[in-house]
Amino acid sequence: MKRHIYLRMKSVPEAREIFLSRFDLKNLLPPEEIPTVAARGRVTTAPVWARRSSPAAHQAAMDGFAVLAAGTFGATPEHPKQLTLGKEAFPINTGHVMPPGTDAVIMVENVPDPEADPITVEAPVFPWRHVRRIGEDMVAGEMLLPEGVEITPWAQGALLAAGVTRVSVRRLPKVIIIPTGSELVPASELDRELPPDHLPEFNSVILAGLVTEAGGVPEVRGIVRDEVSSLTSALQDALGDADVVIINAGSSAGTEDYTYQAVANLGEVLVHGVSMMPGKPTLLGVVDGKPVIGNPGYPVSAVLSFEQFAAPLLSGIVAKLIPPRPTLEVYPAQNLPSKPGLTEFIRVTLGRVGEKVIATPLPRGAGAITSLVKADGLLVVPALSEGLEEDRPVTAELLVRPEDIEGTLVVLGSHDNTLDLLATLLKSQDFRLRLSSGHIGSQGGLVALRQGRAHLGGSHLLDPETMTYNVPYIERYLAGVPLKLINLAWREQGLMVAQGNPKNIRAIEDLIRPEVRFINRQRGAGTRVLLDYLLKERHLKAAEVQGYEREEYTHMAVAVNVLSGTADAGLGILAAARALGLDFIPLMPERYDLVVPESTYEDPRFQTLLEVIRSPEFKEAATNLGGYDLKDCGKIVWEQ
Amino acid sequence: MKRHIYLRMKSVPEAREIFLSRFDLKNLLPPEEIPTVAARGRVTTAPVWARRSSPAAHQAAMDGFAVLAAGTFGATPEHPKQLTLGKEAFPINTGHVMPPGTDAVIMVENVPDPEADPITVEAPVFPWRHVRRIGEDMVAGEMLLPEGVEITPWAQGALLAAGVTRVSVRRLPKVIIIPTGSELVPASELDRELPPDHLPEFNSVILAGLVTEAGGVPEVRGIVRDEVSSLTSALQDALGDADVVIINAGSSAGTEDYTYQAVANLGEVLVHGVSMMPGKPTLLGVVDGKPVIGNPGYPVSAVLSFEQFAAPLLSGIVAKLIPPRPTLEVYPAQNLPSKPGLTEFIRVTLGRVGEKVIATPLPRGAGAITSLVKADGLLVVPALSEGLEEDRPVTAELLVRPEDIEGTLVVLGSHDNTLDLLATLLKSQDFRLRLSSGHIGSQGGLVALRQGRAHLGGSHLLDPETMTYNVPYIERYLAGVPLKLINLAWREQGLMVAQGNPKNIRAIEDLIRPEVRFINRQRGAGTRVLLDYLLKERHLKAAEVQGYEREEYTHMAVAVNVLSGTADAGLGILAAARALGLDFIPLMPERYDLVVPESTYEDPRFQTLLEVIRSPEFKEAATNLGGYDLKDCGKIVWEQ
Repeated sequence: MKRHIYLRMKSVPEAREIFLSRFDLKNLLPPEEIPTVAARGRVTTAPVWARRSSPAAHQAAMDGFAVLAAGTFGATPEHPKQLTLGKEAFPINTGHVMPPGTDAVIMVENVPDPEADPITVEAPVFPWRHVRRIGEDMVAGEMLLPEGVEITPWAQGALLAAGVTRVSVRRLPKVIIIPTGSELVPASELDRELPPDHLPEFNSVILAGLVTEAGGVPEVRGIVRDEVSSLTSALQDALGDADVVIINAGSSAGTEDYTYQAVANLGEVLVHGVSMMPGKPTLLGVVDGKPVIGNPGYPVSAVLSFEQFAAPLLSGIVAKLIPPRPTLEVYPAQNLPSKPGLTEFIRVTLGRVGEKVIATPLPRGAGAITSLVKADGLLVVPALSEGLEEDRPVTAELLVRPEDIEGTLVVLGSHDNTLDLLATLLKSQDFRLRLSSGHIGSQGGLVALRQGRAHLGGSHLLDPETMTYNVPYIERYLAGVPLKLINLAWREQGLMVAQGNPKNIRAIEDLIRPEVRFINRQRGAGTRVLLDYLLKERHLKAAEVQGYEREEYTHMAVAVNVLSGTADAGLGILAAARALGLDFIPLMPERYDLVVPESTYEDPRFQTLLEVIRSPEFKEAATNLGGYDLKDCGKIVWEQ
Repeated sequence: MKRHIYLRMKSVPEAREIFLSRFDLKNLLPPEEIPTVAARGRVTTAPVWARRSSPAAHQAAMDGFAVLAAGTFGATPEHPKQLTLGKEAFPINTGHVMPPGTDAVIMVENVPDPEADPITVEAPVFPWRHVRRIGEDMVAGEMLLPEGVEITPWAQGALLAAGVTRVSVRRLPKVIIIPTGSELVPASELDRELPPDHLPEFNSVILAGLVTEAGGVPEVRGIVRDEVSSLTSALQDALGDADVVIINAGSSAGTEDYTYQAVANLGEVLVHGVSMMPGKPTLLGVVDGKPVIGNPGYPVSAVLSFEQFAAPLLSGIVAKLIPPRPTLEVYPAQNLPSKPGLTEFIRVTLGRVGEKVIATPLPRGAGAITSLVKADGLLVVPALSEGLEEDRPVTAELLVRPEDIEGTLVVLGSHDNTLDLLATLLKSQDFRLRLSSGHIGSQGGLVALRQGRAHLGGSHLLDPETMTYNVPYIERYLAGVPLKLINLAWREQGLMVAQGNPKNIRAIEDLIRPEVRFINRQRGAGTRVLLDYLLKERHLKAAEVQGYEREEYTHMAVAVNVLSGTADAGLGILAAARALGLDFIPLMPERYDLVVPESTYEDPRFQTLLEVIRSPEFKEAATNLGGYDLKDCGKIVWEQ
C-alpha cells in the first residue's frame, strides 16, 4: 500500500504564482474570427476599424420636411414661404436619407399644417439643421474598438453599422472535466436508488457551471475508475481535445491518488497540496504545455480551489478581469478559531441588524455542500491568524448581492422546522426578502438580541418554577427592552428513537438504562432545559444518562444521530422525527415563541413576515409537518 | 399625410409604473420542470426538498484506516495495539463508505508504517472520529432551496446529491424582436456594399443581446416594411409565439409610425412618448395580455429605452433583481446644459485624476452608437434640472467595472490620431490599463491640467513670437507646476480638400475666395492657433474666410465636413485626410507633445504608457498612418 504525503505544501498565492506564471496565458490559444452577430461578450484580439462611415449618407435627424435651407431664408410668420411638396419640400422621417438637393429638415412641429401642399414655412432653417451628416457617428478607417475589450451589445451594433460583419476574438478555452472514482454514479443516473456503497457524482456539474461562468466551454467526460492506467489514458485523450483539463478528484495523499501519478507520468506536477481549508488536496500541473488541475473531491473544496486557481487561469486566457466579489464589513456572531498555517474560508449567512452586518457561521466541513448553498458570504481567515473573534469586524466576500443582505431578517435562537417554511413563504411573498436562521439555542438567541446581533429570537424556554415559557428568561436577559412575544406554534416534544424502537424506550426513565446511548442538545437550548426539568422532576441524575455530554445544535442533527445509529435516543420535536422516519414517544407540548424587539416589530420587513405567519398557507404547511398546534400562532402573547 | 403628435408624454417613472403594474409579472408564464444539470441561473418556483440524505452512508472523512473505535482504546506509544488488515483495520480513502463494523478512521499520518500488516496504533480514536455520518450534510425531507432563488452551480450539486434530478423553475420569456423599416438591410447582409438610400439594420442585434442579458430568449424576425397592414400581421404572428414583443422602430410621431396603429388595432397603447432623451419615441402597450414595446429607432435611444422598460419587465418575469449599476461620484469636465422637462442620459468617459473621477462628455446625439461604445458611464440629468455644472459632483452609473476606471489614464487636449494607436497598444501591453482621450483643444488641455482634471495633456501650440511650441503656453497656464514635455510626434498640418480638389485650393490664400466654404476648429485648439498665425503672416483677415465661425472639435470631424460636402476645406493633419481619402495640401510640420505633470510621470501606469510610446510597434503603426515624423518620439523635450 503506497501513499503520497504532500512533499511541499504551498500557500495560496505561492501556488497561484507558480501555476499561472508557467503559461503565456494571453497567447495560449490562437484567436478566432467569428460573425459579429455572435460576438457578444467576446474579447477582441486586434483593434477593429470601421469599414464604412455611419451614416453612410446624410440622414434626417427629425421627422419633418427635407428642404434646401437657402429656400427658407427670410421666412417669418408675417411673410411665410410656401414650399411645394415633391419639389421644394419632401416629407421625411427620422433616419431616412435626405433627398438630393436638400440640406436641412424643418421639424413637423414647426409646420402649421403638415397635411397641406404647399407647406407653409414661418422661419428660416440654417444649412444642415436636423441633418445627420455622413460619418457623423463614425468614419471609414476610424478605430472602433481597441484590442482586448469585451464586446457589448452596442459594440456589436457599432461594428455592424461600420460594415464589420466578422471580428477576431479570443477563443474560449475548452475545459475537459474528468470525474474519477470507482464508486461514483453519474449525474444522469441519480434519479434511481443508489446502492449504499455508491456515491453520487455531481462535482462535474458544479465545475462545468463554474467553467462557464469563468468564460470557458466545459465538457464533462465519463467517470474514470481508480486506476493509474485508466486515468493516464483518459488524461491523454482529453489533452488531444482540451485546452485545459480538470481532474476531479484524486489529488489527496490517499492510496488511490492517481491524479499525481497520471500527471507526473505525462508531464510535470507544479504544485501538490495547498495550505488552504477547504481545498488542500489541489494539484496543479502542466502536460504538453497545457494546464492540468487536480481538483479536490469534497464539493466545497472543489469550488474554493476552482476559484483560487482555475478561475484566474481561465480569466487570463479569455482576457477578462474577474470582477472581485463585493465585500462588506461584518461582525462574526461567535468566535471562529482556525488552524494557523492554513488559509481558511468560512461560509457565513449575513444580515444587517441595526448598524452592523452580522455573520453567522455555517458548518465548516468540506463535504457540506449545503453550507455553500446557504452561504451569503465567505470570511477568509489568513494563514497567520488563529481565527476570528466574535463581534470584531472583518471583511466578508459576498456570495449574494449587497441588496439581498438588506432584505434579510436574522432570527437567532432555537431551531424549529417551521422556520424553513417561513423562509420560503416570505420569499414568495416578496422576492427581495429572506429569512436567515442561526441555531444557537433559545438562550443564545436572547443574548444575541441583547447584543444587537439578531432581528428576532426563537425561544421555547420552560421556567420550572412558574411552569411558564420564555417570560422569566426575557426578564432576566432582556430586562427593560421594549419587545413583543409572538407565538409561532405549540409543538410536541418527545423522544426520537430508531424505527421500530428496537431498544424499547418508552419514557425519560429509560434513558438511564446502561445500553441506551443518548444524544443531547447544547447548553442553553430550550430542549436541554426541558430535559433537565424532566430528569429533575423524576429525580434522575444527568450523570446517569449515557451520552448526556454529547451535544448537537439542532433537532435535525439529533435525529440524524439516531437515524445513523450513533445514538439510541434524543429529545426533540415530532417534525424532526417524522422528517427522518424515526419513531417518536411524545412527552409534552411546549410553546415556541418569537421574541421581537420593538425596533424589529416596526420594521416593514418584519410586518411582511408577520403577515406570512398569520396566513392560512403557513398554518396549513406547518400542520402538514406534524406535531404542531397553531391555536396561538401569530398572537402577541406578552409584551414589555 | 397623417401624423401623430404624442398626446400625453409620460415621465420615466410614470411610464414604467403604468406599464409594469398592468401585468402580474410573477405569474405571466407558467413554471417549467427541467433537468437539474441544466438549471444553472434559473429561479425556483417552489421550495425544493431533499429526496435522500447525504451522505447516504457513513463515509471516511480522511484518508487512513477504518476501525472499530473500541478496538483502539488503551493504545499508547509504549503499549501500541496491532490491527490486522481486512479484519480489524481497512485502508480507506476520503469519501469512501465505511466497512460494516467500523465507526472511526485513523488518519494515515498517525500510523507509523502504513504499508505494514498488521498496522500499529499508538493512540485511541473515539467513535465517529473522521467519519461523515449519514445525513450530515442534508437529510431526506429537508428543504434545500426556497422558492424564488437563483440556482448556483453549488446548488445544482446539492440538488443532485439529494437525488433531485429535475427542478421546477421560472420559464424564460421568449421575446420576439420585429425590425421595421422599408429602407433597412438585414444584419446578415451587411458585408456587401449598400445602396446609398439603404440603411444597415443592427438594432435587432443590440436588442437581442440586451434581452439575453436581462434573462429572456430573443428571436429576431424578418424586417417588416413600413405599412400598417404588414406590421399588424407581423405583430399578430409574433404574439402567437412570444411572451413579449419588441417592435423597432417606429414609435415616433412621424408619418410612418405604424407601431402605434398596429398596437392600437390589436390591443391597447398604454404609453406613447416618454420624457427622456434619448428614448422619447417609446411606446408601451398590451395585446392579448402580453407586453408589447415599441422601441425607438436611434440605437442609443433603443438601448436606453430598453433599460428603462423592457429590462425591468423581463427582470420581473424571471424574478431576478437587476443588480443596480455600480455608481461613482464624478466631476463633469465641462458644463452640461440640458432641456428641463426631459430626463437626459449623457454618456461620459471617466478617469480618476488625483482624488476626483473626471467625467468627460461624449457626443449627445441619439444616433451616435459609438458614444455608447466609448462610454464608461452615464450621467442622468433629472427632468427638473437645467443641466450639470463643471466640477460640481454628480453620481455616474458605471458601464464599466470600477477597476477599469482605476486603470484609466485621461489625456485631455488636442486630438491626434496616434492617441487611438496608443490606446490599443497600451491595452495590449496590460489589459487592465486604458487611455481615455477627450478632445478639448490644446489650451483646454493645459487648463484641465491646472484644474487637476486630466493626467496628461496633448498640445501643439505654436507661439508665433518665438516660433516655439507649447513652452510659452505652459509658462502662462502652468507656471511653476513641475512637469515634463514629452514629444509624441512631428506631424504634417495642411488643408484637407475633397478628392480631386474640385475647387483647386492650393494655399491659405485660397480660403478667402468667395466660393470656398471653410470649416474651422474651436477656439483654443492648436490648429486654430496655427490658422490664425498663417492668416496673420499673410495679412489676411479671419472675417474674409467664409465659415471661419463654424467650429468642430477634432481633425476627423473637420475631415467629415469636407468629405460630406458641407465645407470645401479645413485645416488638419495628414492622417485624418488620408483616413477619409481626402486630398491634402501640406502647409507645415508641427510638434505634438504630451504635457506630463510630475505626479503623472511617477505613476506606474504612465510609465507603461511611456514604454509603449517608445516601442518600435508604436513608431511603425504611426508611420503607417502617414504624415508623422517620429525622430523625437518619446524624448523629454523640456521640463520645469
